[in-house]
Amino acid sequence: MNDFVFQSPTRFVFGRDFADRVGEEVAALGAQHALLVYGGGSVVRTGLLDRVEASLDSADVTYAELAGVRPNPELGLVRKGIDLARVEKVDLVLAVGGGSVIDCSKAIAFGVPYQGDVWDFFSCKASVRECLPIACVLTIPAAGSEASASCVISNDALSLKRGTSSDAFRPRLAIMDPRLTFTLPQYQTAAGVTDIICHICERFFSSAGAVPVTDNIACGIIRAVMDAATAVTEKPDDYDARATIMWSGTLAHNDLCGCGRAAAAGKRAGGWESHGLEHEISAHHPEVAHGAGLAVILPAWMRYVWHADPTRFLAFAKGVFDVEPMDKTDEGTQDAVTYAIDELQRFFVGLGMPRALADLGLSPTDVDAWLGTLRQNKGERFGELMPLTMDDARAIYLSAF
Amino acid sequence: MNDFVFQSPTRFVFGRDFADRVGEEVAALGAQHALLVYGGGSVVRTGLLDRVEASLDSADVTYAELAGVRPNPELGLVRKGIDLARVEKVDLVLAVGGGSVIDCSKAIAFGVPYQGDVWDFFSCKASVRECLPIACVLTIPAAGSEASASCVISNDALSLKRGTSSDAFRPRLAIMDPRLTFTLPQYQTAAGVTDIICHICERFFSSAGAVPVTDNIACGIIRAVMDAATAVTEKPDDYDARATIMWSGTLAHNDLCGCGRAAAAGKRAGGWESHGLEHEISAHHPEVAHGAGLAVILPAWMRYVWHADPTRFLAFAKGVFDVEPMDKTDEGTQDAVTYAIDELQRFFVGLGMPRALADLGLSPTDVDAWLGTLRQNKGERFGELMPLTMDDARAIYLSAF
Repeated sequence: MNDFVFQSPTRFVFGRDFADRVGEEVAALGAQHALLVYGGGSVVRTGLLDRVEASLDSADVTYAELAGVRPNPELGLVRKGIDLARVEKVDLVLAVGGGSVIDCSKAIAFGVPYQGDVWDFFSCKASVRECLPIACVLTIPAAGSEASASCVISNDALSLKRGTSSDAFRPRLAIMDPRLTFTLPQYQTAAGVTDIICHICERFFSSAGAVPVTDNIACGIIRAVMDAATAVTEKPDDYDARATIMWSGTLAHNDLCGCGRAAAAGKRAGGWESHGLEHEISAHHPEVAHGAGLAVILPAWMRYVWHADPTRFLAFAKGVFDVEPMDKTDEGTQDAVTYAIDELQRFFVGLGMPRALADLGLSPTDVDAWLGTLRQNKGERFGELMPLTMDDARAIYLSAF
Repeated sequence: MNDFVFQSPTRFVFGRDFADRVGEEVAALGAQHALLVYGGGSVVRTGLLDRVEASLDSADVTYAELAGVRPNPELGLVRKGIDLARVEKVDLVLAVGGGSVIDCSKAIAFGVPYQGDVWDFFSCKASVRECLPIACVLTIPAAGSEASASCVISNDALSLKRGTSSDAFRPRLAIMDPRLTFTLPQYQTAAGVTDIICHICERFFSSAGAVPVTDNIACGIIRAVMDAATAVTEKPDDYDARATIMWSGTLAHNDLCGCGRAAAAGKRAGGWESHGLEHEISAHHPEVAHGAGLAVILPAWMRYVWHADPTRFLAFAKGVFDVEPMDKTDEGTQDAVTYAIDELQRFFVGLGMPRALADLGLSPTDVDAWLGTLRQNKGERFGELMPLTMDDARAIYLSAF
């Protein structure tokens, strides 16, 4: 088990109707004047925004509003939010939405106390040390941003989508009501579940070898979320299944599944190869849901790299699919690993996710553009279990068509 | 999945030689003058205390010292510590030791800002709301106190051992170096592992039914800690196994394994029947290690109550021992459940734990005294999966001889 530092300080208030508690909860954090950040559509249509505002009103917490966060949130709105937060002198940023809204809120929250341009944090010119407190009412389980140390923002002008990490901007409070997700479309649910599983896999396939307690937790969460995802396909208002997906999404990305798996204490576990490869796709094609891209890329990456650490892939096969090699030959190993990757992909496809990049309307002629920005973001090599050159990345992309 | 509130804010600094980092870590919490609390024996003998003091010195954190915490820490020393902390005006309590030292430190930390007598918190006269920050350097994985919301103190004058709970006194910082546990005697290691497994079981056997993500995590931790405990029996300095035990001990009791399993948000999950029954034994017989008592009581409790919720016990049998009923008859269920309980007890005994209370030098004539204080602590009925009367408690005690 490698050395690690782990701190997940978020207060999780999880259950039925807890959105109505947001006022008292943010007041308990000392907030008096918040910046309320949301997307638009469903948060307004379902009445959730009204409930949140009523709860804030009743707790005497005032607020300014920033609406219109889009999927793959953009730098322009972040800058606008920072200006507004400064003018309004808010003391907390409250996100009502999914990962995009929370990531936008995070960037605003650490942009406010920073003297320079907030993009500095995404271009490795600065590290986040100070941040306004962040709270959220989660509506989409997927990105895990409600507890994570991660934030991803798109820069349309540069055609870049980049992330930054710091414990400093983990949310202080996450209000999570699974019932808010009953009306999520199946495609979005499936994309979320894929992202959740991928967050666990990125850490599971680090180079740390076996870390039994973390690995058992990781595989246990994956098994639970797979069962739950299948259940909501049949019954979208299955509370327990929705709750399982929502809580799994948090634990998938709050770094619990990375404990002992990072190369060094204070580092994030894993090489994040699939996320790295997928980010270029949804940066260039914003109509592609991140999770849908991952549903294709993760299995493609697995097939390309498993030879680099068969033991780790056998642990995955056993832990998630309860399959072991028939014998100790290379062929036995290959059969078991291939079975597990096939099963994972079958599961994604069964939820309605694409099997190939072509199913997303993408073309092999797009690959050069992705490689161009991938090189900008990652350099000539990236990844951990098997460091990937740009040639490897091209091969994985092409294998996914 | 039941509603829950979960917050485990502790910063875990886990790995090799991190005891030497304690100075900079507590300084980062703002500490300038700490109360350093420890037991005596091994912390001094191994040089750990010297290392901690050197680290504090180099970070310019001064300290007063309170030595002599005994197993089952006593109220008298807590009161002495509170007086000392007030006189010294300390701004943090730093525990160096295991659960007893940390619990003593917690009681001091929440006793300092309280106007009345600290025992009020253990006799249900007051609830903890304020607390000095607490940090610890953990030397014994068992009690989980390094992250828990629990604190147990013995009152010799009243022959009582009582606990109190509050998120307010969860430690801010836990420094955890598995190498500090290489020299733990096998008996103490085994008692710790038993306590760890029991902390998970108390929550697993709540009345909440299945909570797949939490249940998978719980069983995954139990499996990992069982394997690791067996490994250190053969090789006491097996780093990975010691690390597995240490980290499992934390996750067993920071309430991760209770998420969705408590009867209501903000309550602790489970009925804590085995802990309730065992506490009376080690309160009356301080020579009995808490974990050794649990190794007998937990299986005895399981055998007595499993009929009240066979489904839950089948989930345990499957999740921990991968055993399922041969058929769907009552006999098939009984066989699977009995197999799992037998296996658990065999595991404890294999580690060197007692099989029966008689092995601990106890006698059935002691039972009336235990029941007397049990009634004082718990009333006429307690527990959750199957509420236990004092007659039930007597039957369980007697079945354990």
